[in-house]
Amino acid sequence: MVSKNQIKLITGLQQKKYRHANEMFFAEGVKVIGELLASDFELDHLYETENLFPEVPGSKKTTISESDLKKISALSTANNCLAVFKIPTQKKLVEKGLILALDDIRDPGNLGTILRLCDWFGIEQLVCSHETVDLYNPKVVQATMGSISRVGVHYTDLENFMKHTKLPVFGTFMDGKNIYKEKLPDAGIIVMGNEANGISEKIEKTATERLSIPRFGNLKQTESLNVATATAIILSEFRRDS
Amino acid sequence: MVSKNQIKLITGLQQKKYRHANEMFFAEGVKVIGELLASDFELDHLYETENLFPEVPGSKKTTISESDLKKISALSTANNCLAVFKIPTQKKLVEKGLILALDDIRDPGNLGTILRLCDWFGIEQLVCSHETVDLYNPKVVQATMGSISRVGVHYTDLENFMKHTKLPVFGTFMDGKNIYKEKLPDAGIIVMGNEANGISEKIEKTATERLSIPRFGNLKQTESLNVATATAIILSEFRRDS
Repeated sequence: MVSKNQIKLITGLQQKKYRHANEMFFAEGVKVIGELLASDFELDHLYETENLFPEVPGSKKTTISESDLKKISALSTANNCLAVFKIPTQKKLVEKGLILALDDIRDPGNLGTILRLCDWFGIEQLVCSHETVDLYNPKVVQATMGSISRVGVHYTDLENFMKHTKLPVFGTFMDGKNIYKEKLPDAGIIVMGNEANGISEKIEKTATERLSIPRFGNLKQTESLNVATATAIILSEFRRDS
Repeated sequence: MVSKNQIKLITGLQQKKYRHANEMFFAEGVKVIGELLASDFELDHLYETENLFPEVPGSKKTTISESDLKKISALSTANNCLAVFKIPTQKKLVEKGLILALDDIRDPGNLGTILRLCDWFGIEQLVCSHETVDLYNPKVVQATMGSISRVGVHYTDLENFMKHTKLPVFGTFMDGKNIYKEKLPDAGIIVMGNEANGISEKIEKTATERLSIPRFGNLKQTESLNVATATAIILSEFRRDS
């Protein structure tokens, strides 16, 4: 049984302002919840339609009907379980190794996919502009497939951070140097830009190294790569020689 | 003004069986429609809320209200224009150069993103199993951002095709050879597997070369890459030395 107040709280968590006012977010599905339970995230409460997580003590979970789950789920097809977690305090960013910076990524699927890429390529820190989609947006949480528990994400004034960093700043631009020919370091900041507008002017000014991914298709076309696939290629290039 | 019959036809085209029975599909938005108009695709009819495509003769287009556009659009926010095109006859596949093969890709966004990658990396032919999502699904058409007009897509009995090809067949598997260390050819078939299950057993048997993308993150995790980002990394590797 889910009370009216619980429904109100959880559906409210679909909105950023309620998530941050309550310092809570939710995740759905056995895989993502399992990864979060196994990590440092603190469980507030778990709702499941059957006993999917026997290790969670009874006081921390409730068995509910599928129709009740539907009332609190953000998915078009609810997925057996939903868990509310506390939003942890943002850790301090440590300026070492490779750091990925996102300049206003708006699509939740893109942020989730980029987090999975960071996890794969061992990028432990992601820095996001305040305008980047919220990490705890339910669509981002689902798209990370659990990587949210392994990559540190920091929201900050990106321009200010970039101006003061001592690390080299890499951006991809049409006129950049061929990324396949460059010797790439194992420490630095790699910036990826907004889906529609690319890297903003103020962030472009902070880039110390300009790279480009060569195009092999019909060169007359103006087509660009999706930001998540461009990130995949760039991270692969940085790591392949390391 | 859009007639009831036109609304019925166009909304019907959201379903695969109606698209193929009528040999028509539709696209939305200035960018995608513009790319299709500039290509070999044959326009059936264009609906626009203002004169966005002055080059299209009046008999081939109708100015409609925004509320009428909403009735025929598949987007949650309709986009000024919608155009119905004829589905062209599938061209013959030519076994040369690099060919990408998709073994049951189900997500429309993934197929669209993969088509953009083919366009970027100059892969002119894509072979799909019959179970792969339909190319003319409106969500695929939108996600291609116009690349649909530049990459030839062939639906076929993939197993049969792979069994009979003379080209080497590359697949990525956990136990494959490190893709960063291999000398990759400029002709061959690269197979990508289903989102949930990877490459199916029957297709795996046809692979002559087993590759893998090394993981740099926490090796205890079982996380995998999204199929579109894995495709990005693999195509980049095949092209970077060419």
